[in-house]
Amino acid sequence: MSFNSFGNLLKLTTFGESHGTAIGGVIDGFPAGVEINLNAIQQELDRRKPGQSKIVTQRKEPDTVEFLSGIFEGQSTGTSIGFIIKNTNQKSKDYNHNTNIYRPSHADYTYDQKYGLRDYRGGGRSSARETANWVVAGALAKQLISSIQINAFTSSVGEIFMEKPYQDLDFSKTENNIVRCPDEESAEKMITKIKEIRKAGDTIGGTITCVAQNMPVGIGEPIFNKLHAELGKAMLSINAVKGFEFGSGFCGAKMKGSEHNDIFNADGSTKSNLSGGIQGGISNGMDVYFRVAFKPVATIMSSQQTINSENEITEITGKGRHDPCVVPRAVPIVEAMTALVLADFYLLNKTRKI
Amino acid sequence: MSFNSFGNLLKLTTFGESHGTAIGGVIDGFPAGVEINLNAIQQELDRRKPGQSKIVTQRKEPDTVEFLSGIFEGQSTGTSIGFIIKNTNQKSKDYNHNTNIYRPSHADYTYDQKYGLRDYRGGGRSSARETANWVVAGALAKQLISSIQINAFTSSVGEIFMEKPYQDLDFSKTENNIVRCPDEESAEKMITKIKEIRKAGDTIGGTITCVAQNMPVGIGEPIFNKLHAELGKAMLSINAVKGFEFGSGFCGAKMKGSEHNDIFNADGSTKSNLSGGIQGGISNGMDVYFRVAFKPVATIMSSQQTINSENEITEITGKGRHDPCVVPRAVPIVEAMTALVLADFYLLNKTRKI
Amino acid sequence: MSFNSFGNLLKLTTFGESHGTAIGGVIDGFPAGVEINLNAIQQELDRRKPGQSKIVTQRKEPDTVEFLSGIFEGQSTGTSIGFIIKNTNQKSKDYNHNTNIYRPSHADYTYDQKYGLRDYRGGGRSSARETANWVVAGALAKQLISSIQINAFTSSVGEIFMEKPYQDLDFSKTENNIVRCPDEESAEKMITKIKEIRKAGDTIGGTITCVAQNMPVGIGEPIFNKLHAELGKAMLSINAVKGFEFGSGFCGAKMKGSEHNDIFNADGSTKSNLSGGIQGGISNGMDVYFRVAFKPVATIMSSQQTINSENEITEITGKGRHDPCVVPRAVPIVEAMTALVLADFYLLNKTRKI
Amino acid sequence: MSFNSFGNLLKLTTFGESHGTAIGGVIDGFPAGVEINLNAIQQELDRRKPGQSKIVTQRKEPDTVEFLSGIFEGQSTGTSIGFIIKNTNQKSKDYNHNTNIYRPSHADYTYDQKYGLRDYRGGGRSSARETANWVVAGALAKQLISSIQINAFTSSVGEIFMEKPYQDLDFSKTENNIVRCPDEESAEKMITKIKEIRKAGDTIGGTITCVAQNMPVGIGEPIFNKLHAELGKAMLSINAVKGFEFGSGFCGAKMKGSEHNDIFNADGSTKSNLSGGIQGGISNGMDVYFRVAFKPVATIMSSQQTINSENEITEITGKGRHDPCVVPRAVPIVEAMTALVLADFYLLNKTRKI
Repeated sequence: MSFNSFGNLLKLTTFGESHGTAIGGVIDGFPAGVEINLNAIQQELDRRKPGQSKIVTQRKEPDTVEFLSGIFEGQSTGTSIGFIIKNTNQKSKDYNHNTNIYRPSHADYTYDQKYGLRDYRGGGRSSARETANWVVAGALAKQLISSIQINAFTSSVGEIFMEKPYQDLDFSKTENNIVRCPDEESAEKMITKIKEIRKAGDTIGGTITCVAQNMPVGIGEPIFNKLHAELGKAMLSINAVKGFEFGSGFCGAKMKGSEHNDIFNADGSTKSNLSGGIQGGISNGMDVYFRVAFKPVATIMSSQQTINSENEITEITGKGRHDPCVVPRAVPIVEAMTALVLADFYLLNKTRKI
Repeated sequence: MSFNSFGNLLKLTTFGESHGTAIGGVIDGFPAGVEINLNAIQQELDRRKPGQSKIVTQRKEPDTVEFLSGIFEGQSTGTSIGFIIKNTNQKSKDYNHNTNIYRPSHADYTYDQKYGLRDYRGGGRSSARETANWVVAGALAKQLISSIQINAFTSSVGEIFMEKPYQDLDFSKTENNIVRCPDEESAEKMITKIKEIRKAGDTIGGTITCVAQNMPVGIGEPIFNKLHAELGKAMLSINAVKGFEFGSGFCGAKMKGSEHNDIFNADGSTKSNLSGGIQGGISNGMDVYFRVAFKPVATIMSSQQTINSENEITEITGKGRHDPCVVPRAVPIVEAMTALVLADFYLLNKTRKI
Repeated sequence: MSFNSFGNLLKLTTFGESHGTAIGGVIDGFPAGVEINLNAIQQELDRRKPGQSKIVTQRKEPDTVEFLSGIFEGQSTGTSIGFIIKNTNQKSKDYNHNTNIYRPSHADYTYDQKYGLRDYRGGGRSSARETANWVVAGALAKQLISSIQINAFTSSVGEIFMEKPYQDLDFSKTENNIVRCPDEESAEKMITKIKEIRKAGDTIGGTITCVAQNMPVGIGEPIFNKLHAELGKAMLSINAVKGFEFGSGFCGAKMKGSEHNDIFNADGSTKSNLSGGIQGGISNGMDVYFRVAFKPVATIMSSQQTINSENEITEITGKGRHDPCVVPRAVPIVEAMTALVLADFYLLNKTRKI
Repeated sequence: MSFNSFGNLLKLTTFGESHGTAIGGVIDGFPAGVEINLNAIQQELDRRKPGQSKIVTQRKEPDTVEFLSGIFEGQSTGTSIGFIIKNTNQKSKDYNHNTNIYRPSHADYTYDQKYGLRDYRGGGRSSARETANWVVAGALAKQLISSIQINAFTSSVGEIFMEKPYQDLDFSKTENNIVRCPDEESAEKMITKIKEIRKAGDTIGGTITCVAQNMPVGIGEPIFNKLHAELGKAMLSINAVKGFEFGSGFCGAKMKGSEHNDIFNADGSTKSNLSGGIQGGISNGMDVYFRVAFKPVATIMSSQQTINSENEITEITGKGRHDPCVVPRAVPIVEAMTALVLADFYLLNKTRKI
């Protein structure tokens, strides 16, 4: 019943509006005795932060995380880990014109209707700025389950798809380009596309694929905490996400059982992996992989008709500094949420048999 | 931290193996004073039960729900509602040959690895029989939020897609055919396809689309209980589900912002609804709609190579009575889980402003 | 947010009215691979059941637990454990006269006010019959943490106190007498007192002391799941309980620090144990002990003035078959709830350091 | 499963060590549209803060709360409320001598055993400094349920008891003296006692009584969220608490039913109130009152034998600045936790009948 909490045994609770004093959170249930690499956490934040490249928002925020508790002499203490990220560069006046205007396909209208008021500065609580908190927590979770490799990457931008199977990719190349696609040829096309879109004052959608490798067997808790169901919930929590599929996904719905079944090898591994590494909600030791669909960012730089809180028709043109395509910056967010889900289940699994 | 619980304020907790004495559950948080129509609940169960038609499993189970508490003199009392459904027709001997064989793309292997043992009769806890419990709870939830219309239907079987937009369909026709597709022409093709598949001893996947109409505004709890994230988790909890998308879904990831934004009318409704009735995780009053992908059933009637618990290669051929396509029987399950999610949020929303 | 659930990782969810078809529950989070002794569970239920002796209610109910899931071939499977206890001897007509009368110091009035209606037969959900469910779950929990010895006993009835320190008692004698006081001399006085009270148509309160021995160090989760806070909540959940104290308890509030501190021995044990085996919410390996106060049963066999649901003054005289003193039958309930708390924390503790 | 969270629908999650950078928390589930009086919150904190008078610790900390989110233009927004209180005056060097010494009747030993390490500066997470967070949350909760009057006061210090029934007290006088006892005569004796104790380098226990008046009927959620069980858990979460009783409490355990029952008036109120305003876990509209026992503070200014982390016998003498009696400063903490419990149930109750 925590609207702002994610996870079960390892639980992240967050707060913060995009243009308030600070955002932050509390990570509860993190075990004691984990050596904490603070630089690695900040590096993940840097991957997500605005202003990194020409295809993302030009807003500059240092996004420096400050840990307030739960880490002592380089180790986690088992107590709750509080942290904040100060908001330093919020240009609230960019949003003054939005005080009572509902931007199309934003959450202005629904927040106002639900709560009777809203913090109208830059999306307030509904802003994707919140996901910086998730990256902090996910980076900590990665350090707890460091034997699992989690790699996300941009797999499509608009109609441009990177078609190679993930097995043929070298994930060490993902950070080599600003769109975060490990296939250079596709990356180049995607970057060109995003630049084109930005120039036109428009935005574009895309997809991210994520792969978790070196998975232990037994991760996931049926009936209602199935591994893929929690991953799906985690991904659908990310701003702008419209869909989630794992393993064969929507393609699997076109197939026959005789094509789709994954035949076992003698060691328990499977010859194919249309299952996406999960059976009955529990990891089977094969790679877990899934794909996440992001809609185009709603704020565009051309004029659109809309309404205000008095239900009057008006016009709006995007101001502020926005991403033409959210996908490159969402790659570390997808990884972070994956890490949170896996770390939570890793801990839970310690309690499931004697 | 309840592995077998779903929901927040309205919470379903379930138990039961497919070949145990009974399955059942407890519904907690259901408000007092709701007139309960027991027949309507049994009717929903009858829609899901095996043996209804030639394109579903021929196993016959009456699937009669018995309420043990929480309903008194025709009304909910506000106390927890306990119920059971007895297992009457389990042919456990059909499964004796599976004692130590891991069926491909089933959960036998993962349960054994996770728990160190499993109830090997018919899938045990991982069986879709569990979903009968969900239909009971969902049918109760429907009576709590009776003003919302929830309609699911089969939108594809294998490669056969019903292409009409849902707005052109007459949902009263969904139950007119055994595949539960309200478009008769598509339904016929789907039925033919499933019969063909069954004859070949094979199985096939498909998709279900679900639409919630007459939605109130304000349903859904950001940040981590967004309406679509909870719907996604609910759908991904259903056996055989591989993907979930809402509104524009994966198609939205190919679009531009200028195409994708839903422009407001003066009354707060929108001209288009690519958002799928949800902004920022909160319903905006437009129709909520989504699509769910089901893989083909893993049990097929031809011989497949597999392994046993001693990691020896062996062969298996499906016995028992299985569905050639799970989709028709899953339609009421999708509706039930949708109703549970909406009813939970409906209650929560009563507490979100003063 | 589960009104009818207790526990965190090991969670009991219950249902049932005293005069409905059955009561029961679901135990979730119980690890796989525990050998289950069903007889031991039934024996605990038999300790609680009505009609055992002359100083408890003469109502006879077999109180036979039926397990419906989660136990297979003598072992827990790690899936949820469903169980029911049928109500076989409910004499609802004993309660017909109560349909719209509010019994003094019962929950009739508050249930009616809160929910707008109530199951008026024998207390409905507010009946202590519910605690039979807890005894089932507690008996299972005892089998999970079998190395810990949990012993509760009657430490006072009315003004009759058993003054010996628990260290001087032989807990194997607790079941030797019907009042469940291991000190025979005190037991005799208590029994005489209760017989006297019953004869007078009256009821009487008392206290139960509980001791958990052979405690591991590290059990309990600060800040808000302190061991003693959860024990306190557990005890205060039992019908008729008015108070809880652990270690030095209310006496400790009269003491000075120089008297109250427990001085360490070199091995980490302490010379005294006014702490009650808990520091900062975490067990320190010493005995955990606490005391629970029970009010006298509200149903008495003499006439009392009361009101009905029309707010009219009327008279009521206890009918039905009631306990003159609830304490003897509450001894196994106190033990059961203690076992549930300890087992839950035992599991949680597996996840608190790497 | 949140070790550092309290509450259900209204949930407080906290973090912070006594000598870290800051303590703080997140309040989730607070409804939108409540006018927030920030001064009133700071005033509650000031009641709890150290250095207020001669009978409490002389440590000086401003204890200024900074709200980071969830309040906008003077109102709650319905989003999570983040806050911090910076630690400004921690003299960590006072604790350097404690690095590996286990103070008697403190949590040093149990934290070290449970987590394998601990923040040894001033109690770390186990310090009562944490309760400043609770006072912030409780002060917000009070503004949500402002029609209920919650008044706590010191009812005993050591053997000095304020014997007057609470009905005879004028709660406006509680803040008139430094021990927070509204009966001046008793207050004077208590103050003299504490001064004496402090001079002797010793500490002393005491009790606090709390009364909630103008209670609505229907607050509390059986079976496992009974009003008194949650209050008990809340109180037992406060540092140094050893016992909780409500209504007749431990005295009630000596009484007969014919004495103990509360006879109804025609309007549903009761002539006596031994029930403490709660029947079956639900408020009945009468005053809710309870009593909480605090042990003497463990840190005393004379030498005590103890051990270190190498299990060697050593000596320790309290340094730092400690309270001779924790009770006066605990009065606002008891009120805060009471407010949190009541506000949580107040919200939940909105969902319990249609």
